[in-house]
Amino acid sequence: MTPEEFRRYGRQVVDWIADHQERIESYPVLSRARPGDVLAGLPAHPPERGEGFEAVLADLDRVVMPGITHWQHPGFFAYFPSNATGPAILGDLLSAGLGVQGMLWATSPACTELEIRVLDWLAELLDLPARFRSDGTGGGVIQDSASSAALVAILAALHRADGGTAGRDGVTRRHTLYISSQTHSSLEKAAKISGIGSANVRVVDADPLTLAMDPAHLDALLAGDAAAGALPVMVCATVGTTSTTAVDPVPAIGEVCRRHGVWLHVDAAYAGVAAVCPELRWINDGLAEFADSYATNPHKWLLTNFDCTAMWIADRAPLVGALSILPEYLRNQATASGEVVDYRDWQIPLGRRFRALKLWSVIRWYGAEGLREHVRTGVRLAQDLAARIAADPRFELLEHHPFGLVCFRPRWDGLPDAEGDIATMRLMDRLNASGDLYLTHTRVGGRVLLRMAIGAPATVGAHVEAAWDRIREEAAAGP
Amino acid sequence: MTPEEFRRYGRQVVDWIADHQERIESYPVLSRARPGDVLAGLPAHPPERGEGFEAVLADLDRVVMPGITHWQHPGFFAYFPSNATGPAILGDLLSAGLGVQGMLWATSPACTELEIRVLDWLAELLDLPARFRSDGTGGGVIQDSASSAALVAILAALHRADGGTAGRDGVTRRHTLYISSQTHSSLEKAAKISGIGSANVRVVDADPLTLAMDPAHLDALLAGDAAAGALPVMVCATVGTTSTTAVDPVPAIGEVCRRHGVWLHVDAAYAGVAAVCPELRWINDGLAEFADSYATNPHKWLLTNFDCTAMWIADRAPLVGALSILPEYLRNQATASGEVVDYRDWQIPLGRRFRALKLWSVIRWYGAEGLREHVRTGVRLAQDLAARIAADPRFELLEHHPFGLVCFRPRWDGLPDAEGDIATMRLMDRLNASGDLYLTHTRVGGRVLLRMAIGAPATVGAHVEAAWDRIREEAAAGP
Ligand SMILES: Cc1ncc(COP(=O)(O)O)c(C=O)c1O
Ligand SMILES: Cc1ncc(COP(=O)(O)O)c(C=O)c1O
Repeated sequence: MTPEEFRRYGRQVVDWIADHQERIESYPVLSRARPGDVLAGLPAHPPERGEGFEAVLADLDRVVMPGITHWQHPGFFAYFPSNATGPAILGDLLSAGLGVQGMLWATSPACTELEIRVLDWLAELLDLPARFRSDGTGGGVIQDSASSAALVAILAALHRADGGTAGRDGVTRRHTLYISSQTHSSLEKAAKISGIGSANVRVVDADPLTLAMDPAHLDALLAGDAAAGALPVMVCATVGTTSTTAVDPVPAIGEVCRRHGVWLHVDAAYAGVAAVCPELRWINDGLAEFADSYATNPHKWLLTNFDCTAMWIADRAPLVGALSILPEYLRNQATASGEVVDYRDWQIPLGRRFRALKLWSVIRWYGAEGLREHVRTGVRLAQDLAARIAADPRFELLEHHPFGLVCFRPRWDGLPDAEGDIATMRLMDRLNASGDLYLTHTRVGGRVLLRMAIGAPATVGAHVEAAWDRIREEAAAGP
Repeated sequence: MTPEEFRRYGRQVVDWIADHQERIESYPVLSRARPGDVLAGLPAHPPERGEGFEAVLADLDRVVMPGITHWQHPGFFAYFPSNATGPAILGDLLSAGLGVQGMLWATSPACTELEIRVLDWLAELLDLPARFRSDGTGGGVIQDSASSAALVAILAALHRADGGTAGRDGVTRRHTLYISSQTHSSLEKAAKISGIGSANVRVVDADPLTLAMDPAHLDALLAGDAAAGALPVMVCATVGTTSTTAVDPVPAIGEVCRRHGVWLHVDAAYAGVAAVCPELRWINDGLAEFADSYATNPHKWLLTNFDCTAMWIADRAPLVGALSILPEYLRNQATASGEVVDYRDWQIPLGRRFRALKLWSVIRWYGAEGLREHVRTGVRLAQDLAARIAADPRFELLEHHPFGLVCFRPRWDGLPDAEGDIATMRLMDRLNASGDLYLTHTRVGGRVLLRMAIGAPATVGAHVEAAWDRIREEAAAGP
């Protein structure tokens, strides 16, 4: 494709996206495709001859769009949001257009240094501890996902705990990891990947009401495991759990970690970015004193399209110790000088995209002011919704809702719990099939709750009200 | 950013990229930035107020561009290419614009099904074995990198070898992995990550001349390790090594693997895509009979921007067994029906971009014909260069160069090897500092060779000739 053709087709694609943004409410939120529908619409064999890009755009409308569930739809409340905003999309486009690969500082210095600076900016915007900044022993890095950040944290923690023995000789003794029943499944997955094993993931009790991890139980487990000869590797505390946005007591957990000399990773994948607002900075409690690593996802609530997880570490030495290998073909003067960061040693893959560009674009376009405004809107809409639910005697509300997620269920008067669960699931399926909105569910204390996560930039009060009206209507139709 | 603003700025960015493509030869290939230069050009603090996108574009030119090493420059011969072509960039832009997240089939059916189909297409284009197609027990998936593909292969192999014991209880006994001295460092990294340990990576002898793995030595190592109580997990054979594009004898290695019941992963990160050309299909020898998993990178030589590694597996059961965890909040009817693929279970992270769009765009824009043409051009330019080097008595050529990489060094008549190595490194540094071209080095038999990798779509015969002229001139200036 020549630069002239790129200009022409590039405009078409930009217009296609702008049109799509304008007409997004005309689509059902949840795709109505059944398994195999999209496959059936695609030729079985690749083309022998090249085609014009118009053909791709035509098939995008014909075959792909009916199979899209619209994460950017204002009625998308299903999972935590995955904001894809204009400046993020354009920053990402610049990254694709430049086509540089930032595995080493030397392979594009700007790719590394812009990332260092933008992660320092974000640390400042969130008021994160100074030891996460790049001018000390720590620093920030963009990972593809909070899952990978957790895995990387485990590897660094393991390296610090055993001085690199497991990396060299394998995980030959029993290693343990500490989470709660509310911790994201990526931690168990990381335990499987890292050779620790899912059976060595110790599940600390969560308070039945607040769903927050119990530090006293953590303490007891750590003491018992160490006494039994295990090597406790890491504790993962969560700020804003996936199921209900519960917040673990990081200061108390941190005290326990310090006492036992165990690494503390704080997973704030969804909620961490809320600290752009001073009134929500309480979510950072304990980070400055205790957190060895921290992750939050601009690709969820902070207006940056997937993938963009911001991860910080208080000490980069064990991370690089765990992940660095230097074959001849990657040696270069800059690396040898020790003056530069080679981000390949901070992540699982070798190669890396220039992802800092999109985060840079977002921070500059919105400014601190705009980021705060976005988070505040989501929180306000969620509070308004929660107030409506609380005021409706036919519904039951989960009290804790400090961010953009509200969990609730119809009371289904008179129905026993198990039947109420079935009715709630049926209600959700009917609502999702309508195309007007998309919700998910979770279980708390064994009972099904609906999850409504607010936070798409396109969502305004009227959308939340319309969704709430639809939910009440549908629920009124009976179980 | 409103859709109207997106249209306006989107055009500016498209034009910026097209202009960049047009003027790319005006930049030095290797950035001249010194450590800290880019950082110094960026404000220490994030903006309080949002700015127009013009400000981002202005700073891109002012601060970022001087720190860019131009992977798309026709004089970039340093690493294997990382082609970012128009259709790939636009496919990627569509993915960013749609902003969907394909962790589950249900979260956007088209994201999963287009990937299934496009990987089947690519399997057909490369003439890969039928058991890698999605209609049998196997299938294809897009990973971020060949490094992650290798890690995922190890986890699947481990699961098959021990029925899931290590995933559950940890890697408690000695597990071993087989590579050669020429295997990419990502395999050792994966051994560290997966808890196998780098000391349990067994290095099979490579033939000193061809640098290909010795199947007899592999056989002996496997027998010895198993007898000593280790659990051999996986053998990694490479088709097109990073250092010199050596090709391991996959059929003979496969026989050994079968005899020992060990998983065979074939890493063809760079060279695998060359099989679009029938005359290069010999690189697939042994795949149909023996390979359990296979990876090649469209994001290297196949015109698709990073990240896009194509990975196939002959049996998806152990992969899903190793990586699947199903918490309540990810349960859904489609998953429960067993009728769909949930790609989150095929990879390390949870979330995933709609990367199939860019590969689809590339295959449709170029067609099979265009893909073959691109690979053939690279191979022809490399053969021409090799012929010139062979004809020049002042240079020494590494004989094996079936793809786009040529390795060579000046003879530096009379200099002992160690001094010749220093002279070769100095020559390389002078050439790279000139900005005209960018080369890397490797070591073969302890001696330094220059690596010149041809394969950017912008590179034509004249660029290779100019580079060769520069190299001869500079070398003629003496050690
Ligand atoms: C608390 C928490 N941690 C981790 C994750 C996983 O995020 P990612 O897709 O970035 O791995 C999520 C996703 O919702 C989450 O809520
Ligand atoms: C043979 C081989 N395997 C693996 C890799 C790693 O590739 P990636 O950056 O996709 O992990 C390379 C990179 O050059 C390679 O040449």
